Amino acid sequence: MKNLPLYILRSPPRSLLRLPLPVASAFLSHLSYFITISLLGFGALKLTKTRNSSSPNDLNIFFTSVSAVSVSSMSVIEMEVFSNFQLLIITTLMFLGGEVFVSTVGFQLSRRFKYLNEKNQVDSARSIEMESGTSSSSTATIDELSSSKSCSKLLDRMMIGYLLTTNGVGSCLIFIYIITIPHAKQVLESKGINFLTFSIFSTVSTFTNCGFIPTNENMIAFKNNPGLLLILISQVLLGGCLYPVGLRLAIMAAAKVTGKKEWRYILKNYSEMGYSHLLSGLRCGFLAVTAMGLIILQLIIFCSLEWNNSAGIWDGLNPYQKFVGSLFQVTNSRHAGESVVDISAISPATLVVFVVMMYLPPYTTFLPIRNKEIASMSHGKDKRQHLVELFTFSQLSYLAIFIILICITEKEKLRDDPLNFTVLNITLEVISAYGNVGFSSGYSCKRQVKVDSSCKDAWYGFAGRWSAKGKFILILVMIFGRMKSFSMHSGRAWKLS
Amino acid sequence: MKNLPLYILRSPPRSLLRLPLPVASAFLSHLSYFITISLLGFGALKLTKTRNSSSPNDLNIFFTSVSAVSVSSMSVIEMEVFSNFQLLIITTLMFLGGEVFVSTVGFQLSRRFKYLNEKNQVDSARSIEMESGTSSSSTATIDELSSSKSCSKLLDRMMIGYLLTTNGVGSCLIFIYIITIPHAKQVLESKGINFLTFSIFSTVSTFTNCGFIPTNENMIAFKNNPGLLLILISQVLLGGCLYPVGLRLAIMAAAKVTGKKEWRYILKNYSEMGYSHLLSGLRCGFLAVTAMGLIILQLIIFCSLEWNNSAGIWDGLNPYQKFVGSLFQVTNSRHAGESVVDISAISPATLVVFVVMMYLPPYTTFLPIRNKEIASMSHGKDKRQHLVELFTFSQLSYLAIFIILICITEKEKLRDDPLNFTVLNITLEVISAYGNVGFSSGYSCKRQVKVDSSCKDAWYGFAGRWSAKGKFILILVMIFGRMKSFSMHSGRAWKLS
Ligand SMILES: [K+]
Ligand SMILES: [K+]
Repeated sequence: MKNLPLYILRSPPRSLLRLPLPVASAFLSHLSYFITISLLGFGALKLTKTRNSSSPNDLNIFFTSVSAVSVSSMSVIEMEVFSNFQLLIITTLMFLGGEVFVSTVGFQLSRRFKYLNEKNQVDSARSIEMESGTSSSSTATIDELSSSKSCSKLLDRMMIGYLLTTNGVGSCLIFIYIITIPHAKQVLESKGINFLTFSIFSTVSTFTNCGFIPTNENMIAFKNNPGLLLILISQVLLGGCLYPVGLRLAIMAAAKVTGKKEWRYILKNYSEMGYSHLLSGLRCGFLAVTAMGLIILQLIIFCSLEWNNSAGIWDGLNPYQKFVGSLFQVTNSRHAGESVVDISAISPATLVVFVVMMYLPPYTTFLPIRNKEIASMSHGKDKRQHLVELFTFSQLSYLAIFIILICITEKEKLRDDPLNFTVLNITLEVISAYGNVGFSSGYSCKRQVKVDSSCKDAWYGFAGRWSAKGKFILILVMIFGRMKSFSMHSGRAWKLS
Repeated sequence: MKNLPLYILRSPPRSLLRLPLPVASAFLSHLSYFITISLLGFGALKLTKTRNSSSPNDLNIFFTSVSAVSVSSMSVIEMEVFSNFQLLIITTLMFLGGEVFVSTVGFQLSRRFKYLNEKNQVDSARSIEMESGTSSSSTATIDELSSSKSCSKLLDRMMIGYLLTTNGVGSCLIFIYIITIPHAKQVLESKGINFLTFSIFSTVSTFTNCGFIPTNENMIAFKNNPGLLLILISQVLLGGCLYPVGLRLAIMAAAKVTGKKEWRYILKNYSEMGYSHLLSGLRCGFLAVTAMGLIILQLIIFCSLEWNNSAGIWDGLNPYQKFVGSLFQVTNSRHAGESVVDISAISPATLVVFVVMMYLPPYTTFLPIRNKEIASMSHGKDKRQHLVELFTFSQLSYLAIFIILICITEKEKLRDDPLNFTVLNITLEVISAYGNVGFSSGYSCKRQVKVDSSCKDAWYGFAGRWSAKGKFILILVMIFGRMKSFSMHSGRAWKLS
């Protein structure tokens, strides 16, 4: 017990706070960004008219706004309620909340901030140097700052180019698909959805891995359009778990085409660029292998368990369409959360697989090699634990707490409606919100044990049937999930063995 | 991708195997020990007569034997089926499988092995020294070996003394309680259970944290005997998560009473003694605080959610009895798994809390300080990853796989009997088996949606209604859980951020 007070005494408050400060400010700026955009989105959706002019209640609108900004696509309102203009608002929210956009803006701001404060930083670095007596790190930082400035600018342009190209090409492809394939055209015409709005909305939603689709039944309406599904699958991957791979490939292509030495510098000194999505070639390789491995694994499990699904999720599809549909479904389970099948008609074993996959963060990598970068990182971190870290729990503990809280807020329904309100469905919803996925078991009046004659089936998620408290907790879970990169390493003070 | 082949080339097969070899042999010796005892137990239970001479089937007997040896107390047979002699066999199995006994025997064997092979070890240490060029560690080891020999012997005696004293005193206390309190006496008399057998069986079962009780309804029959519950709570803690604390306190007491300097040497050089349950004073302190904290936390949750339970789990109890019952229940959720209430009558929120608590290994500690011991350990481990480690998953991944497999084996029942066969109940059963706890939701004919008139309620666990395949998987889970100290650090090659 001797070490605790000593540890605290040895570290005066200022030096304790100095190290975590950048992390804390990044955390707060991200949090305030997401909340501000959500509130603006709420205002915009509230002030504009819905299609049938019956406005949903405020909590549900706020929920939808947070769901779009946190790219979760958890839903408590049917999508066809929204007018064309509102769909464009949601498109904007999803675009502003998407990780590629947020990280690009963050990179730009930190670049400008660096430039403006370069002198300040040099001074402060020197003062730290004098205080602590270490000199190597700070001088090196200053050198790198000046040498990589032009590279930062190029990288910044590449990120913007990547973002606009993928979204532009995607929207065009979907638009062309719709006007050429009669079935897709008919679906949209019958629902009165603007073709162009649909193309842009779906592309942005899929690239950001949000997963909203302007139709009530999400992609189920397009389950026999394998071409459309394949376009969306590529968007899911390029904007989601394979973004670092796509970015690196784009830089490699630029290096080859233009021959500029800056591109090669960027590729080589990826960690000095200060962009967290720019990973080493090795890590990108393993990331791609892991992502593909998880998709293939899921595809095998999904096909073997659901190929002959008796609940009719595949009605009227030929084997090729079933295969593409399965591929689409399992690709979406990691992050995007679009769906060609009714999740509640899937067997529990598959649902548990989905829960696991939704929990895995996008850049989960099987990385059997400790390269220098990681070793040195963990080394530096091990030396000292911040006080803040000491009182945090692991991700899973927080999720367990959220699940327990929702089991408490929905206590009566768990008892009276035990086939809809199962702990599995609540877990699926919470992990789906945490993973910013958007899968939901939904709710079915048929499954009620005590039949309520006023019950009406609807095309929104299970959370739509929850109490206001439960929905509010889920809003917190979505924001917590969107910020998970900041809490990934929490809970270290707990020793499980 | 460059590093992988290099890594393999740099480490010739011999040196790759040298480091993990002691771990591998410890793993195999433990595994073979548990399987051998389980098979012997199966033979003994098979050959002896049950009380009503109708023998349960072989799989169920083997399941019970594994359950006793792995100190899980998962049940597929009602306990009152077993005759007095069979109860004594199960007592022996639990005693032989308990962690305190197993670790004591392991310590003795390693002591003798050290003594016999001291010369060998010195030679091999020298050859390693010459090969690798490092000398400090091996010479130190040899010095310590000779200096701590007498201490090892003392420690060994202390462990045996601790084991026998706690079990002896516990059995006596329970026996005295039974013969003096009329209600407890009546229960056992009406069931025809021998008082002495009950006392020894329950003490051994509780001290090893197994959790079998000779009555069908486990401790529910004694829910209004707070005295008995308090005796058992102390046994649960002394033999379970507070064993290192108890052992250290016993050594400290011995040091004070006898004044021998060896005791102080043991306390100071705890890590050199080579006994994994002998922890530092600091760790023991935090372990005790964590264990108490978790009990208090659970007690608050359990009481606030279940104090007014409507399913009648507290029928006929006064507030004091309810409080002690609650304390007993939450103390048992960590490891022992004895129960004074019907688990299926508890609200889902509490069940999720139990699932989390059952998952936590016994020595879970909130340890905000990295003392030298831990830092140096993790340092040494970080330097090199063994090839074996690379292809393992984390504990939770294995558990998810087991849950998915059982959802597949019990697929039909999940569909046709959705109120008994819920994923929560399966998860509870799997985590309970993995944590070697023994809680089970049971099975209720009343909850069947399609009523099966041949269904009979019975006093065994939910697993008793599973298919043979499902039971077999659960046997594997119990053994996997009993060996969890070997797989605790697996899955390190996966990077989640
Ligand atoms: K999503
Ligand atoms: K147990």
